[in-house]
Amino acid sequence: MDGSGNSEAVVDLLGVLAYGELSAFDRLARDAELAPTLADRSALSAMATAEFHHHEQLIERLRELGVDPFEAMEPFVTTFDSFHESTAPSSWLESVVKAYVGDGIGSDFYRAVSEYLDPRTRDLVLEVCADTGHADFAVDKVRAAIAKDPSVAGRLALWGRRLVGEMLSQAQRVAVERDALADLLVGGAGDGSGMDLAALTKMFGELTERHAARMKALGLSA
Amino acid sequence: MDGSGNSEAVVDLLGVLAYGELSAFDRLARDAELAPTLADRSALSAMATAEFHHHEQLIERLRELGVDPFEAMEPFVTTFDSFHESTAPSSWLESVVKAYVGDGIGSDFYRAVSEYLDPRTRDLVLEVCADTGHADFAVDKVRAAIAKDPSVAGRLALWGRRLVGEMLSQAQRVAVERDALADLLVGGAGDGSGMDLAALTKMFGELTERHAARMKALGLSA
Repeated sequence: MDGSGNSEAVVDLLGVLAYGELSAFDRLARDAELAPTLADRSALSAMATAEFHHHEQLIERLRELGVDPFEAMEPFVTTFDSFHESTAPSSWLESVVKAYVGDGIGSDFYRAVSEYLDPRTRDLVLEVCADTGHADFAVDKVRAAIAKDPSVAGRLALWGRRLVGEMLSQAQRVAVERDALADLLVGGAGDGSGMDLAALTKMFGELTERHAARMKALGLSA
Repeated sequence: MDGSGNSEAVVDLLGVLAYGELSAFDRLARDAELAPTLADRSALSAMATAEFHHHEQLIERLRELGVDPFEAMEPFVTTFDSFHESTAPSSWLESVVKAYVGDGIGSDFYRAVSEYLDPRTRDLVLEVCADTGHADFAVDKVRAAIAKDPSVAGRLALWGRRLVGEMLSQAQRVAVERDALADLLVGGAGDGSGMDLAALTKMFGELTERHAARMKALGLSA
């Protein structure tokens, strides 16, 4: 590590991703319990497992950079744990929507940020943000449920909005606490490697659009 | 499937293993929460993930045999769920001992039975019963804990005995309910493919010996 703002930001980004994947594993594995059938439970567990393999790749990359991966994750534990506590699904469909919508927003965000990183880190981020099968599975399950009982659509749309709200408030907290990450976003790294305000605005616009597209795919209003 | 006793026993064995691995995944993922450090949590989650991949291989084999894998698992859901409910670890060390001792006895049993199956099924059973890293990890953690506080050894030894007792009572229940599996064990399949009484006695002797060796490796009395 060269100690520059960007290196610190890279470690932070890999750390936040690595813990995010570990906690996604944990929550998906637990939510699998809500599955109505063994096949659904197995499918959600498969997604949990895919998240865990991303966690392993990120750990490996942090080790390559000479960083203790668990120290790099530590600052983000409270953030993710608070998010998951405040958005514990109360039904199988809520857990399916959370897996798809939550994973989708997270991945879009990390992908956008990865453009400002070194090629190797960027490639890894793009790889761990690839869809792990949440999309098709979630769309199938939610559409089938709405077809059977249209009244679930309203409740799930509200749930989607709550997920976004909780994610934004946690992201804001991270931005306040982690200067290096925030600098990457607002172009303050001093080396011109971060986003400028126009890029930031564009990114948020795209995140919102893509979120709306996912909600629409589920048959829900954003 | 040719409808013979052995084919039914193969489906039962693959079914019991497939659900056993899914529930092991589930429990290890949940027990990972008890981990004292992020590194331990990540390590236990890695074991959970390894169990899940075994589950996937068994599902695939059942599909190859033209069997619905989830139907094949269904008869064993209650057995494993009861076992895990009655042996929910109350501490990190209990979960580590359970992962090692429980997985060990199960694997020894399945390996012994696999000798009476067709080569392809046998190879798969041997593969999914290979150690997934529980052994070294458990031995390290438990020995370190005993070195720090020798009084934990007595409690963990009792815990090991309780695990064996619960496993035996669940195994007995399966033997009563699943004729094909029981026939495989007591040579009643009619085609000479099962164990005779001498082989059965030998198998139980070996299971007991190997269990005692694992407890000794942990620094515990069996």
